[in-house]
Amino acid sequence: MATEEKKDVGITAKKEEDMPEWFEQVCLKAELAEFSDVKGCMVIRPNGYAIWENLQEYFNKVIKSHGVRNAAFSLLIPESYFKKEAEHAKGFSPEVAWVTEAGDSKLEERLAVRPTSETLICKSFKKWLRSYRDLPIRVNQWCSVLRWETKQTKLFLRSREFWWQEGHCIYETKEECANETILFLNEYKKLCENILAVPVIAGVKTQKEKFAGAVDTYTVEALMPDGKALQMGTSHFLGQGFMKSFEVQFLGKDEKMHYPFYNSWGFSTRLMGGLIMSHSDNKGLVLPPRIAPNKVVIIPILIGKETEKIVKKAEEIKEHLSEFNPLLDNREEYTPGWKYNEWEMKGIPIRLEIGPKDVEKDQVVLVRRDTGEKDFVKIEDLKKKIPKVLDSMHENLFLKAQKLLKQNTVVAKDFGDLVKGIREKKLVKAKFCNETECEDWIKEKTEGATTRCMPLDDQKIEEGDQCVHCKKPAKCIIYFSKSY
Amino acid sequence: MATEEKKDVGITAKKEEDMPEWFEQVCLKAELAEFSDVKGCMVIRPNGYAIWENLQEYFNKVIKSHGVRNAAFSLLIPESYFKKEAEHAKGFSPEVAWVTEAGDSKLEERLAVRPTSETLICKSFKKWLRSYRDLPIRVNQWCSVLRWETKQTKLFLRSREFWWQEGHCIYETKEECANETILFLNEYKKLCENILAVPVIAGVKTQKEKFAGAVDTYTVEALMPDGKALQMGTSHFLGQGFMKSFEVQFLGKDEKMHYPFYNSWGFSTRLMGGLIMSHSDNKGLVLPPRIAPNKVVIIPILIGKETEKIVKKAEEIKEHLSEFNPLLDNREEYTPGWKYNEWEMKGIPIRLEIGPKDVEKDQVVLVRRDTGEKDFVKIEDLKKKIPKVLDSMHENLFLKAQKLLKQNTVVAKDFGDLVKGIREKKLVKAKFCNETECEDWIKEKTEGATTRCMPLDDQKIEEGDQCVHCKKPAKCIIYFSKSY
Repeated sequence: MATEEKKDVGITAKKEEDMPEWFEQVCLKAELAEFSDVKGCMVIRPNGYAIWENLQEYFNKVIKSHGVRNAAFSLLIPESYFKKEAEHAKGFSPEVAWVTEAGDSKLEERLAVRPTSETLICKSFKKWLRSYRDLPIRVNQWCSVLRWETKQTKLFLRSREFWWQEGHCIYETKEECANETILFLNEYKKLCENILAVPVIAGVKTQKEKFAGAVDTYTVEALMPDGKALQMGTSHFLGQGFMKSFEVQFLGKDEKMHYPFYNSWGFSTRLMGGLIMSHSDNKGLVLPPRIAPNKVVIIPILIGKETEKIVKKAEEIKEHLSEFNPLLDNREEYTPGWKYNEWEMKGIPIRLEIGPKDVEKDQVVLVRRDTGEKDFVKIEDLKKKIPKVLDSMHENLFLKAQKLLKQNTVVAKDFGDLVKGIREKKLVKAKFCNETECEDWIKEKTEGATTRCMPLDDQKIEEGDQCVHCKKPAKCIIYFSKSY
Repeated sequence: MATEEKKDVGITAKKEEDMPEWFEQVCLKAELAEFSDVKGCMVIRPNGYAIWENLQEYFNKVIKSHGVRNAAFSLLIPESYFKKEAEHAKGFSPEVAWVTEAGDSKLEERLAVRPTSETLICKSFKKWLRSYRDLPIRVNQWCSVLRWETKQTKLFLRSREFWWQEGHCIYETKEECANETILFLNEYKKLCENILAVPVIAGVKTQKEKFAGAVDTYTVEALMPDGKALQMGTSHFLGQGFMKSFEVQFLGKDEKMHYPFYNSWGFSTRLMGGLIMSHSDNKGLVLPPRIAPNKVVIIPILIGKETEKIVKKAEEIKEHLSEFNPLLDNREEYTPGWKYNEWEMKGIPIRLEIGPKDVEKDQVVLVRRDTGEKDFVKIEDLKKKIPKVLDSMHENLFLKAQKLLKQNTVVAKDFGDLVKGIREKKLVKAKFCNETECEDWIKEKTEGATTRCMPLDDQKIEEGDQCVHCKKPAKCIIYFSKSY
C-alpha cells in the first residue's frame, strides 16, 4: 500500500524542466486547488483555503488599522450601470459573463456577474455621501469575481473565477486620495515581502496597461522563476471619472457641490500562485512560514513495544506547541519515510521526528523544509527554537528570491539588449518614450514582452536620454518582460 | 443642522403598529443594509457586515473544533450537474438565475448561479474519496447564493442574494452522519440562544417542507414579535441520494465499494433579520451584546473651558477599555442629546457619558441600551463592571424573547383552536397526521399557516390521539404558524 501510494502522491515533473506541469502537480498533490467542472474555474481545497484565510486575517488587521471597513455588495450589476463609465465598460465587456434568465423568465435587462465592483459601489457612494463630513468613506469586500478568460487557464494564476479583496475609498481632496493610493500599494509590498517572502517592484503602469477607467494604476510585480512577471496587487488612482459618471457629489465646506476623488485596490488568489511558484521545489510545496497554517508536523517513529510511550510523548509535544498549530501524524499504516515525503510535499515548514532514543533524551530531531537541515533540540527548548527557525526560513526564502530577481534583471542600453534579454527570460529595465504605439511595436518584435511598471524608486531621466526602441526622448525608466 | 438631521435619522414608525415599515427603517437608519440597484438584492453596509463578521468568527471556531475546514467552490454550476438529483433540481429550478452568455458568445450549456452547492460539492467528493480512510470529509464555505424570489423582498429576511455558510460532510456510516446532522443543529441552537439571545425550537420538518433532495431536514425556528416564524438555520440529513446520483463511492474495510452518507447545514443573513427584529425597539437597533462589534460608546459632554480636559479623559477611557472596541464621539458640531439618540439608534449596548463633574470624581454615567438604566461607575471599576452589564443585557434580552415565545404559543385541541390561534398570530402546537394532503388543506383553510417543525423534545403521542384537522390517528406533535 505505502509504496503504491507514494508513487501516486510524489511530484514527477521537475521545476527547472517543465514549470507549468510541475506547478500544476504541486497545486493538485498538495491538495491546494483543483479544476472545477466549469471550464476555466477552480475549487480551492481546504489546504489552499487555509492559506487564503491567513492572508485575509493579516490583511483585515492592516486595512482596519487604516479605517477601512468590510461590506458586501451585489454579485450582479445591471448592464446599464456597468456601461456608465465608457472606458471601464470597453475594457471589461469582452470578459463579462451575463445572467439573462431566471426561473422560467427572460430578464428585461442583462445582469453582469461582477468582474470588479466599481460601478455598483459608486451607486452606494451616491446614496451615502452628502457632505464633506461623511468623507473619507472607505470600504472593502472579500468576494469572488468572474472574468471570462479566453487564454488557457491555470490554477490560481489565471482562472475565470478568482477570489480577492477589493477596497474602494473616496476622499475630499486629490492629495489625500493619491497618498492613500500609494499607502495601500505599500501595504501590498509589505504583504508580499514581509509575509510571503516574495520581493516585488513597486511602480506605475503605462496608459496601455492601466486598469480600465483609472487615471493611474500602481502595481507590485514579482518575477517568477521562469522569467515571467506576475502582478501581485494593484492600487488604482481613479480621479473623478467614475464620480462624474455616477453623479457622486458632496456639499463642501464652501457650501458648494464637489466631486470626491476615488481609489480602488485589490489583490487576489493569483498571488497564491506567486507564492507557491516562488518558493516550492521538486519535493513539493514550500510555504513561507508566516503564512503557513500549520507550522509544525510531529512524526513519531513507532517501533514495537515502545510505540505507546512514543505516541504519548508526541501528544504531549503537540499540546505543548499548540501556538504553532501542529499536526501529529501517528497513523500506523504508513512508514516514517512515507510520512516525511507526504508532509514535505504539503509544505509544512518544520518536521519534528521523535523515536525511542529521543524520548529517553527528552529531545526531537527538527528538520527544516527549506534546507532539509536537521538538528537535535531538547523538548524544553522547542518553544524558543521554533520561532527562530521560522524567522530564519523566511529570511532564507526571501534572500533566495531576491537573488533570483537580481540575477534575472538586466539593463538594456539598446533594442538589441532588450530583445536578447527577453529571449533569455530576463526582466529588462530600459529607458522608454512612454508612448502606446512604441509599446505595441516592442510587444510585437519581442513576441510578447509587455511593460510591467515604471519603478517608483528609480526614475532618473537625464537630458538626452533616448527611448530604447524608437530613440525619441526618454520619458521614464520601465521594466519589460513576458508575464502571467 | 442638528435638529434637521435628527428628524432625518430617527425611527418614525412604531414596532407595535407597522412592523414591516419599522423594520426597514431600523435596517436603513442604523446603516445595516440597503436595497441594491438589482431588484430584490441588497448591500450589507459596514455596520451590518461587522455583525456578520462576528458571527463568522464565532462559528468558524465552532466548526473547526468539530474538524470542519473551509474551502471555496465555484459560483457557477453546469445545468447538467444541477439536474442530476431529480428532486433537488425540481425544488430549485423555479428560482435559479442562469448565465447564458459570456463576452460576445452564447454558452453551449447554461450555467446556474449557485442557489446552494450540493451538486458541485458532490463532484469534488467524487474526486477526493477513495477509501474509508479518507472519511469523514467535512468542508464548509462562506459565500453568497442567489434564489430568484418572486415574493416581495425584504432586507435580510428575504432577498434574492443572501450570504451564508454551507457545511457539507460525508461519513462512512449512517449513524455517524445522523449524529452530526443533529450536532450542527445543536450548534445553531447554541448560536441563536447563547450568542444572539433568540430562543428557538429545534425540530424536524415535514416531507413537504424539507430541503429538496433531503431525507430529513432539521431546523431551528424562532418566533418574531409579529407572530411569524423565522427559520434561523437548517441541517439536512441527505442519506445516500446525492451520492448515488453523483457516483460517490469508497472502498470499505471489507474491500467492497460503498456509498457514504451525506449531510449539509447552513445559516444565512436571514438570521440577522431575526436578531434585529427580536430585540430592537422604537428608538432603533438593540444588539445582543455578545455579537455587537462595538460594546461601548463614550460621549464626552463638551462644555466651554473644560472641553480639553474632558476630551483627554474620554480618550484615556477609550484606551483603557480597548478590549470592548469602544467608539468615542467627540464631534463638536452635535449636542450630547443628539449623539445619545444616534448611538441608541445604532444599537451600541453601553453608553458612557462623561462631563466636568464626572472628571472631578473619576466616574462616568453608564447607560444600558436595553433598559435605559443609568448608573454612576468609577472609572477604575469599568473593566469589571462592563462584562457584568453585558451579561445582564444578554440575559434580559433572552428572557424577554423567551417570555414572548411562551405567551404566543398555544396548544390547539381541535381545528377551531388552530384557526383561532393563527388568526391571533400565535405559534400553534397540535397533534398531526403528518400527511402532505392534510398539510395543504390546513394551509388553505388558515390562509397561509405552514408546519414549522416537529419539536425534538416533545413527541409524546398516545394511542387514540387524533390529527387536529383530519382526525386520523396522530403521528406527531407539530407547530403551525405563518412565516417569513
